[in-house]
Amino acid sequence: MKPIRLLAVFVAWFVCVAQAFAYDGVVEKKILNLPTYTTLGGKTLKDVKVGYETYGKLNAKKDNVILICHYFSGTSHAAGKYAGEEKSTGYWNAIIGSGKAFDTDKYFVVSADILSNLNKATFPFTTGPHSIDPDTGKPYGMKFPIVTIRDFVNVQKALLDNLGIKKLVAVAGPSLGSMQSLEWGAAYPDMVERVIAVITPGLEFDPLAIARAGLWSDPILLDPKWNGGDYYGKDEPSAGLAKAMKQVTLDVYHWGWANEKFGQRWASDKNPRDSWDNKFAIEDTLDRVSEASAAGVDANAFLYIVKSAQLYRVGHGATLDEGIKRIKAKVLILPAQSDLLFFPAYGKRAAESLRKAGKAVKYAEIEGNGGHLDGVLHIDRADKLIKTFLSK
Amino acid sequence: MKPIRLLAVFVAWFVCVAQAFAYDGVVEKKILNLPTYTTLGGKTLKDVKVGYETYGKLNAKKDNVILICHYFSGTSHAAGKYAGEEKSTGYWNAIIGSGKAFDTDKYFVVSADILSNLNKATFPFTTGPHSIDPDTGKPYGMKFPIVTIRDFVNVQKALLDNLGIKKLVAVAGPSLGSMQSLEWGAAYPDMVERVIAVITPGLEFDPLAIARAGLWSDPILLDPKWNGGDYYGKDEPSAGLAKAMKQVTLDVYHWGWANEKFGQRWASDKNPRDSWDNKFAIEDTLDRVSEASAAGVDANAFLYIVKSAQLYRVGHGATLDEGIKRIKAKVLILPAQSDLLFFPAYGKRAAESLRKAGKAVKYAEIEGNGGHLDGVLHIDRADKLIKTFLSK
Repeated sequence: MKPIRLLAVFVAWFVCVAQAFAYDGVVEKKILNLPTYTTLGGKTLKDVKVGYETYGKLNAKKDNVILICHYFSGTSHAAGKYAGEEKSTGYWNAIIGSGKAFDTDKYFVVSADILSNLNKATFPFTTGPHSIDPDTGKPYGMKFPIVTIRDFVNVQKALLDNLGIKKLVAVAGPSLGSMQSLEWGAAYPDMVERVIAVITPGLEFDPLAIARAGLWSDPILLDPKWNGGDYYGKDEPSAGLAKAMKQVTLDVYHWGWANEKFGQRWASDKNPRDSWDNKFAIEDTLDRVSEASAAGVDANAFLYIVKSAQLYRVGHGATLDEGIKRIKAKVLILPAQSDLLFFPAYGKRAAESLRKAGKAVKYAEIEGNGGHLDGVLHIDRADKLIKTFLSK
Repeated sequence: MKPIRLLAVFVAWFVCVAQAFAYDGVVEKKILNLPTYTTLGGKTLKDVKVGYETYGKLNAKKDNVILICHYFSGTSHAAGKYAGEEKSTGYWNAIIGSGKAFDTDKYFVVSADILSNLNKATFPFTTGPHSIDPDTGKPYGMKFPIVTIRDFVNVQKALLDNLGIKKLVAVAGPSLGSMQSLEWGAAYPDMVERVIAVITPGLEFDPLAIARAGLWSDPILLDPKWNGGDYYGKDEPSAGLAKAMKQVTLDVYHWGWANEKFGQRWASDKNPRDSWDNKFAIEDTLDRVSEASAAGVDANAFLYIVKSAQLYRVGHGATLDEGIKRIKAKVLILPAQSDLLFFPAYGKRAAESLRKAGKAVKYAEIEGNGGHLDGVLHIDRADKLIKTFLSK
């Protein structure tokens, strides 16, 4: 065999082996099992499970890890798709993968469900109010302990411990995921090199946001079928939940988007002036989308995640300052320019507070008129910026 | 009697007589009675009543008239107070009165309730879904015809006809009142010299606002006690209505206000993390304020006013352009800088459209961090500006 031929064979073999390890976009759900987990509020849960996914390969030193934290109604499915399911692409697929900001040729990307994930699709692998309480043999319902952003972080920490990971190149996430990312910086400052907080409420939940999130929960509490949270296996509070989801849906968009997409169009050729049944297109679509999405959501879990957001304050201490002080990571604050839920002003305020405390902060905005959701649907616009931030 | 003494007596007499005619801040409700009124949708109501108030004195030429139109949850009580009621000051009292922008020494200021006013306090003098349908002897409920901003304007026109008024120096109003003011400009262009549109959605209702207003109504529709609008004399949908009012209340403020007033304070010394019953101060206050305000509100009327707002388009024609074309008045567009319900961008867009169509427009913003409500609670900040606008 001539040397050049030998080289070719070696290269072919190497490429083949490397590909076998490389992330090819097909992902699967894994499950973390914890015998117990004690919440920040001091309640101990038994037999805790949390679904998670990984993309790319953990290196030998286990120091090429990026943790992705999901948003309010998200799951750990941040990238790729499941075998045989073409439509199930993860929400941040645009920036996770070969050659992308979170480059799976380079990084090992981990993404875990939060406790009490609100999607029924996570029921088989993630613990929440729907789960059977081992002590009673019945679903927890509203007896599930109140959980906080710190609890989501602590469960992720247990997962990383399990995988033998001691260092994070970055923790990143949109919205509720940004709160977890910043909380990571304060909770485990020596582990986190960078925090990427996208469409973030900042370092604590703003009082207006506390109230607005409370409004989201109201229609569930108003629905008699909610029944104090005791509805599993019975008629569910679908009407209330649909109205709750309708509020969420509207709050994550911007009027620019609404103008482009709907304008003042009617839902049909029937004038809304002529009857209470005749709707505008935007109302009709919102109602239909919300009813459909509510079918996949657990009402109790919705309430728990709202509460976790309301309770958010970096470090979860008595004051915000002590939380800020603990952070050692470089922080990237990345609001969406047209966000009407977590205004860019919230991100600016956070950046200023971190800067004042002597932290390394970069602030930039995602352009667009898509509102809060630009941090998910148009995260590709920040791909280069994130790449640069990771390189420094 | 020495000449100087004579002069003094004359001056005293003159001042005394002038005062007898001048507006002294004590006002009373008057009632307009119309045998019939036919809505824009073609439905005829019988025995229509509408409450109204006037401040100042109509001159002989009847050409010193300013019409004030009220906001969503407002009434015709725009200025002054009722005899013996110290706390009942009208909502724009800061700019209506002697020496103020709407100077009652100079102008005759008229303010009327809209049809279907949502305040129960207007039940004795203003027709709405609560009124007895002469044809059935029962309250209209949801059989009350759908009313539009144009209908509110047409009833005001009937009132002015009744008073023999053919010309308006200005029509002004905040929020829903700004829609009526602009609609006046398109409906009766030869009558209206100036339009002052404060905290305005602009020339038509923005699709995002259509959807948001729909959200306001949802909790009422979700309350079983609403009962298709048939609840008069029975148990009222107070729970749903309170949640509806809570949304309205939150939407008319700004996060700057929420930070100053509440921050992340707890409602009591009990940590919201420890129980579902423990609330943040902003939530607790909102809940209490909303429950209290809901007690004075009629749920059906609330739904009717939401609908009227959603249907708003200047001129109420097939296109916005034909409405704009009709306007002859000088227009002042006056958003509140921190408005998160009717963003200043809506006002800017309206000003641009009017300018493009060759209309005389002035655009300015009310400074502050109080949100939408700055157009009511801090209208004093625009006193000078309005005075100047009226002088040109």
